[in-house]
Amino acid sequence: MKAPELGIRIGRYAHGKKNSIADLGVKVGHATIIEGEDIRTGVTVLLPPVENPYEEKLFAGTFVMNGFSKPIGFVQVEELGYIETPIALTNTLSIYTVADALIDLWAEENPKAISVNPVVMECNDGYLNDIKRRAVRKEHVFEAVKKASLDFEEGSVGAGTGMSAFEFKGGIGSSSRIVEIGSEEYTVAALVLSNFGKREDLTIAGVPVGLELKDYPGRGLSLGGSISMVIATDAPLTSRQLGRLARRAVVGLARTGGYAYNGSGDIVLAFSTAQTVPRGKETHAIGFLPDDALSRLFVGAAEATEEAIINSLLQAKTTKGRNGHVRYSLPKEELIEIMERYRRLEMTKS
Amino acid sequence: MKAPELGIRIGRYAHGKKNSIADLGVKVGHATIIEGEDIRTGVTVLLPPVENPYEEKLFAGTFVMNGFSKPIGFVQVEELGYIETPIALTNTLSIYTVADALIDLWAEENPKAISVNPVVMECNDGYLNDIKRRAVRKEHVFEAVKKASLDFEEGSVGAGTGMSAFEFKGGIGSSSRIVEIGSEEYTVAALVLSNFGKREDLTIAGVPVGLELKDYPGRGLSLGGSISMVIATDAPLTSRQLGRLARRAVVGLARTGGYAYNGSGDIVLAFSTAQTVPRGKETHAIGFLPDDALSRLFVGAAEATEEAIINSLLQAKTTKGRNGHVRYSLPKEELIEIMERYRRLEMTKS
Amino acid sequence: MKAPELGIRIGRYAHGKKNSIADLGVKVGHATIIEGEDIRTGVTVLLPPVENPYEEKLFAGTFVMNGFSKPIGFVQVEELGYIETPIALTNTLSIYTVADALIDLWAEENPKAISVNPVVMECNDGYLNDIKRRAVRKEHVFEAVKKASLDFEEGSVGAGTGMSAFEFKGGIGSSSRIVEIGSEEYTVAALVLSNFGKREDLTIAGVPVGLELKDYPGRGLSLGGSISMVIATDAPLTSRQLGRLARRAVVGLARTGGYAYNGSGDIVLAFSTAQTVPRGKETHAIGFLPDDALSRLFVGAAEATEEAIINSLLQAKTTKGRNGHVRYSLPKEELIEIMERYRRLEMTKS
Amino acid sequence: MKAPELGIRIGRYAHGKKNSIADLGVKVGHATIIEGEDIRTGVTVLLPPVENPYEEKLFAGTFVMNGFSKPIGFVQVEELGYIETPIALTNTLSIYTVADALIDLWAEENPKAISVNPVVMECNDGYLNDIKRRAVRKEHVFEAVKKASLDFEEGSVGAGTGMSAFEFKGGIGSSSRIVEIGSEEYTVAALVLSNFGKREDLTIAGVPVGLELKDYPGRGLSLGGSISMVIATDAPLTSRQLGRLARRAVVGLARTGGYAYNGSGDIVLAFSTAQTVPRGKETHAIGFLPDDALSRLFVGAAEATEEAIINSLLQAKTTKGRNGHVRYSLPKEELIEIMERYRRLEMTKS
Repeated sequence: MKAPELGIRIGRYAHGKKNSIADLGVKVGHATIIEGEDIRTGVTVLLPPVENPYEEKLFAGTFVMNGFSKPIGFVQVEELGYIETPIALTNTLSIYTVADALIDLWAEENPKAISVNPVVMECNDGYLNDIKRRAVRKEHVFEAVKKASLDFEEGSVGAGTGMSAFEFKGGIGSSSRIVEIGSEEYTVAALVLSNFGKREDLTIAGVPVGLELKDYPGRGLSLGGSISMVIATDAPLTSRQLGRLARRAVVGLARTGGYAYNGSGDIVLAFSTAQTVPRGKETHAIGFLPDDALSRLFVGAAEATEEAIINSLLQAKTTKGRNGHVRYSLPKEELIEIMERYRRLEMTKS
Repeated sequence: MKAPELGIRIGRYAHGKKNSIADLGVKVGHATIIEGEDIRTGVTVLLPPVENPYEEKLFAGTFVMNGFSKPIGFVQVEELGYIETPIALTNTLSIYTVADALIDLWAEENPKAISVNPVVMECNDGYLNDIKRRAVRKEHVFEAVKKASLDFEEGSVGAGTGMSAFEFKGGIGSSSRIVEIGSEEYTVAALVLSNFGKREDLTIAGVPVGLELKDYPGRGLSLGGSISMVIATDAPLTSRQLGRLARRAVVGLARTGGYAYNGSGDIVLAFSTAQTVPRGKETHAIGFLPDDALSRLFVGAAEATEEAIINSLLQAKTTKGRNGHVRYSLPKEELIEIMERYRRLEMTKS
Repeated sequence: MKAPELGIRIGRYAHGKKNSIADLGVKVGHATIIEGEDIRTGVTVLLPPVENPYEEKLFAGTFVMNGFSKPIGFVQVEELGYIETPIALTNTLSIYTVADALIDLWAEENPKAISVNPVVMECNDGYLNDIKRRAVRKEHVFEAVKKASLDFEEGSVGAGTGMSAFEFKGGIGSSSRIVEIGSEEYTVAALVLSNFGKREDLTIAGVPVGLELKDYPGRGLSLGGSISMVIATDAPLTSRQLGRLARRAVVGLARTGGYAYNGSGDIVLAFSTAQTVPRGKETHAIGFLPDDALSRLFVGAAEATEEAIINSLLQAKTTKGRNGHVRYSLPKEELIEIMERYRRLEMTKS
Repeated sequence: MKAPELGIRIGRYAHGKKNSIADLGVKVGHATIIEGEDIRTGVTVLLPPVENPYEEKLFAGTFVMNGFSKPIGFVQVEELGYIETPIALTNTLSIYTVADALIDLWAEENPKAISVNPVVMECNDGYLNDIKRRAVRKEHVFEAVKKASLDFEEGSVGAGTGMSAFEFKGGIGSSSRIVEIGSEEYTVAALVLSNFGKREDLTIAGVPVGLELKDYPGRGLSLGGSISMVIATDAPLTSRQLGRLARRAVVGLARTGGYAYNGSGDIVLAFSTAQTVPRGKETHAIGFLPDDALSRLFVGAAEATEEAIINSLLQAKTTKGRNGHVRYSLPKEELIEIMERYRRLEMTKS
């Protein structure tokens, strides 16, 4: 269940049909790796809605709110303004294996090409997962790609398997927003891998849920909390504009209780599905939405990110892992009771 | 009255004695310019706690959340990592006059120097003020410097005279936080010039105050909403670390309802009062607080910024200006009633 | 006389008809201010080839090689990716007056607008000019705008009046290059305000001219050496691409002997005259030249900048100023003798 | 033979004892991989002069001149200002394997740690090497680490095995400079992996060597030319200052003929060996060399980089590889003849 189904409204705009990044045609696939007592990890891939992302590059931009983070591929995205592979998410120490698997896939699909820039983002699931065993293998990446679908699971799956947020179980969450601009309707969506925050920080629709649940069991701080955020839109934005959009993810993050602590990697990748990047040596026409039109997209990106984080909590399941550590699912009954007490369920229902 | 006096608590840390940037020894001075029906503007200066800021430079860093903004001096602060003049705030079209006045002050104090980098930040008060008349004169800057004090007014004074926030009266606000790190206690404070936001966006301690007050009179959108934020701390941070601290101001901003709309300039300058920047050609010892220690300062900066914005609203007075435009002071009775209804006054009182 | 007329060839591409930024239709105007013994300064304005630059904004990007510099307007150019006023150059302490004059011009031309981002760049002419007297007045800016022409002077005029380079007389220089890309021919040009470098650093077409002339009279180091560089092209580039182009100015700078010393402001603004930036809330088509096509433009920008710097030296006249300081014009006979000795005149003539 | 041994002087400062990055105590190790007709690649590691780089982090900064590049670890270096692993260089598609091997080494040495940021830089050796076979295995990294020494080979070894520069054989090159600042003497050194440039671009000490050798055999353009540059110094610089130093590597690069073509990755990592980064939550004293003192270090970094690039060419051996491609060693006799003809050997010998 996502936030709206619980009667919790985040923000002012309506969400899309699937209330996820699938509303942009982005397929998401997971490989969930659970082995013995202490492997709780996985990999998640996002497939942009093109046949071959190397041949059909998409405009993209990034933002690094806190760079205690090891994203692969960000330097080139910043310079050239596009992505050219699927986007993968995994645990901190497995990003190199995952990137190497993306190279395999690209090499097979593009026999004549000699250089590519895979994009991989990470969080550290070491609280529940024996991260140093680097359990993710290339096969997991291939599996995740094969399974990619517009109907994907969220919560403690794929890269989210071992992640923690606000000392609850975190992981994968997604949400989307529809915004009207001029005579057009655009969609903006977020998919996050949540793995950050102290219990007390958790805020849902402005309500200090974490403070209220500070004595709920399962506390224990993760080191290296982080959040990887992906924003997609069908508005025809340039890379500079997508960088601007990426920064608004942090507005949503802050409202859930995010502070971007020192040890946290809080990073954002934004891309547009509106058009592929022209190549070659001749001038092409591309669609350009003036910056005057961006404020609503900014709001949509902030709202979608805020809800995606909450959705990651709502959909994650209690997980026991390494060293007997347990992360509980955010308790729904207590949550509803709190939201009602703070008059936030009523308002959103009326 | 600032937020705590109304029973509204922002965040987890205690504030300093004055709950303002004065807790760092920073003096603040205003020149408030009210002429006829349509001049409602002014200038505010912040004096770092040193004798001669050109001779006693302070480490500094910046962050630009949204650069629809014309700050003076940011390029050099980024390169060299310090400020060397007072910091001034004023309206968008008066920054050049104000910078030129800072040059006058510097020239007099430093007869042998031949180059200086004044720092001036701005918001557009054109809703209440006939900004194109550029009513700020050099004398106003000198007056503000002369009046600078540790006991300064907030709200609709100085640069805040004509500013609007959330379609209420905005302006100058400040707040501070005390954080314990290791065996030390540090202070971090924010001073803001608030001039942004739609009515519905206003959020106070998580409560959708703006939505509740959406029918309260005085609506009317300003163009070019913005917020200039200054963060000061006595923790011995380097310029890189102060850039990190500056980014956390945006966490506070987001929680009040800030989205950094396209037409908004949302910028931050952070500096440390802990030590002056060594000069010359020999190696000096400076104090360095490891990044491991920064998380609490980050929280403090976010909280102080959030409260400073709310304080700017609470202290601003209803103001009538250009074209008969009126900005009402945020109504206190209604506010308290709303906060109670959402159970946020009780909680903070207990 | 510019470099080619002396038989000195910089780089591989041909220059445009005027071998200056005027090849892009950019008009340049100067106000040269010479008063008494110690005022040697001025202002130079570049008028983009549009009727009203506020209504017809042009895509732009920036690069800061060394930010010991106080450029006005760079934050907003970076965020929004365009310029919307003429570009002005002047001495370090007069930029505020000059920016304020640009506001006057904009206000008159655009009575309904309430915010604008003037762009002003500076170097410190304090060696020859009593810079603290801030001799540039608004009238000088208006005069420079009025005089702007496609046939403009270079050397010790306008903002270049009091500038020094390599302990010779520096100032304004310009050059252009024609590059073929695909089936099109594009022009890229540079205009610089040169005011940097030690005598020994001066390098012309690879020849250590400065070392050879190290005993030529007139030595004496300026403090605060700097160079402001403007690049223009008619290739349809986005702001991100113009930022890339701006970085190549530094390639040209390095080849003349530039090191970007600590005290130097080495900054670049690049803009495209190919199309105006669409406004409003609907999607527009804009021309987009793929990044694959940019290498030749990069070479052109590097070559044009390198030659523009040399041209600034070749056209500047011996100037006596403040404190009896004299900057000699780079001696042509000696230069030719040196270039011949190093076999660089022959080669370029053949 | 390096440049000085051929009578070619680059710049004004003297080099250190070894004229390499070993003058800073940095050990360098190579694994050279030559298999059959078409594997010509390898890996090079740089070991900072500390016992355990994870426990003894060193201040660091970066610069990206052209980000058509996939460096691993740059985001975190920028945020936190330090390196914490050896630095590795390899081919573009092998960086992930190499990073993963650095994780192995770190994991073994630091059993309790759970997160680390390996730094790997790359160039594309696809002209001579069948890069898609990703011939570099983890064992090669371990071998390179084991072999690391203060007396290391340069040219076509390690990561340099298959690299091309100016259509000659390129690869690993290093150089150092001694600079006096105040009462101290500091060393600054560069190590580069050169793999960029068209034949005609090659410039040595200002002489157009590439133009003169344009008909020398072995031409054929590599795609994806790049250069990875590492700068080390024993001056006690902060991360911000090291970022400034990194930018000066581009001055040296430009002088050898570098333009940072669109398809090139031109990136720099700079670090200081002067002191380790304090950790924990208490304030420490660190050495700080004021920015006023940096100009000479900037010159040293530029000179060392320029010479390191030339040294990479001078020491690389003719190599035949994939598809029968041959890269010739830069011909020494012809080079000397050219340098004499342009009067650059005489001057430097006198």
